[in-house]
Amino acid sequence: MPYVNIRITDEGVTREQKQQLIEGATQLLVDVLGKNPATTVVVIDEVPMDNWGVAGELVSDRRKRGQ
Amino acid sequence: MPYVNIRITDEGVTREQKQQLIEGATQLLVDVLGKNPATTVVVIDEVPMDNWGVAGELVSDRRKRGQ
Amino acid sequence: MPYVNIRITDEGVTREQKQQLIEGATQLLVDVLGKNPATTVVVIDEVPMDNWGVAGELVSDRRKRGQ
Amino acid sequence: MPYVNIRITDEGVTREQKQQLIEGATQLLVDVLGKNPATTVVVIDEVPMDNWGVAGELVSDRRKRGQ
Amino acid sequence: MPYVNIRITDEGVTREQKQQLIEGATQLLVDVLGKNPATTVVVIDEVPMDNWGVAGELVSDRRKRGQ
Amino acid sequence: MPYVNIRITDEGVTREQKQQLIEGATQLLVDVLGKNPATTVVVIDEVPMDNWGVAGELVSDRRKRGQ
Repeated sequence: MPYVNIRITDEGVTREQKQQLIEGATQLLVDVLGKNPATTVVVIDEVPMDNWGVAGELVSDRRKRGQ
Repeated sequence: MPYVNIRITDEGVTREQKQQLIEGATQLLVDVLGKNPATTVVVIDEVPMDNWGVAGELVSDRRKRGQ
Repeated sequence: MPYVNIRITDEGVTREQKQQLIEGATQLLVDVLGKNPATTVVVIDEVPMDNWGVAGELVSDRRKRGQ
Repeated sequence: MPYVNIRITDEGVTREQKQQLIEGATQLLVDVLGKNPATTVVVIDEVPMDNWGVAGELVSDRRKRGQ
Repeated sequence: MPYVNIRITDEGVTREQKQQLIEGATQLLVDVLGKNPATTVVVIDEVPMDNWGVAGELVSDRRKRGQ
Repeated sequence: MPYVNIRITDEGVTREQKQQLIEGATQLLVDVLGKNPATTVVVIDEVPMDNWGVAGELVSDRRKRGQ
């Protein structure tokens, strides 16, 4: 029954990568806690780079500087 | 003052259905806990089917198999 | 597969009230969107009144004033 | 290491306003709790007005009435 | 910069298991998306079994029936 | 109507500091976006240091090393 929410910046994540994130997070809960995969939910939120800040700066500005 | 967040897959939910979800969730908090509806907030997140996984699979793949 | 998160202040909600919130929110998703109740998850967060603010004030202070 | 999530209705927030929100929220954590800005994350979610309800009503309907 | 939130029922998760969840989720983001582990945040929420519902039922009631 | 969620590690935040966080976050939304403070909600989550990871490590372990 676990619920996992993965929040990342929206930078061209492919369908295959999303599949890998969902598979990997589900397996992690099975391996570590013995959870039932059938009821494990994983939700990926892709957040625009103008909406994500770190160190008080937009990620879109950090990317321009090569960070 | 309650805050309710309803997360569902993005599959053509209509404006009228959203209205019903918001009305119903607000009324639930009034009925069960006597909360003030004026300050009850409900936020609906529609998540792309490629971003939602259950049982380690994308919902978009499950839908193709008729699940 | 919906995920519903109900956040309320921690003010003595009983086990029976929690059951009613979970049952009501699940039924709402069934009635409005035809969701499968077996995979509908509802999580209730009870937040201390010192940790919840509205109008720039702690709820614990508002309660003292009878609001 | 704090994580701040600001959820607002999607009503034409500019890039400069987002920068101000991110800068302001980061500074708040520095000023009040002495947190390290380098590891303070702020994420802004812009929610469609049809997906946000208050008092059991869609914000989009409230806006039509001038609220 | 990813933010991962793992929500599970509060059923005696050990410190070592938490370490494994945090390590595993961080590594997943590194492996699949090439994210920088230094700025990857993982937060685990342990939710009381009376506050988590599935299929319209409290998890605490499901556990009593051996589910 | 904004909703702000501030998640921090549980390290003895005082009631006065919580008041300052709630006041500051509310004022930020007023100043930058002209939001109505009366309907601005701020919720602070204090997360145990064993439940928060960064760089694949528990914060409780980082604190022992003086980070």
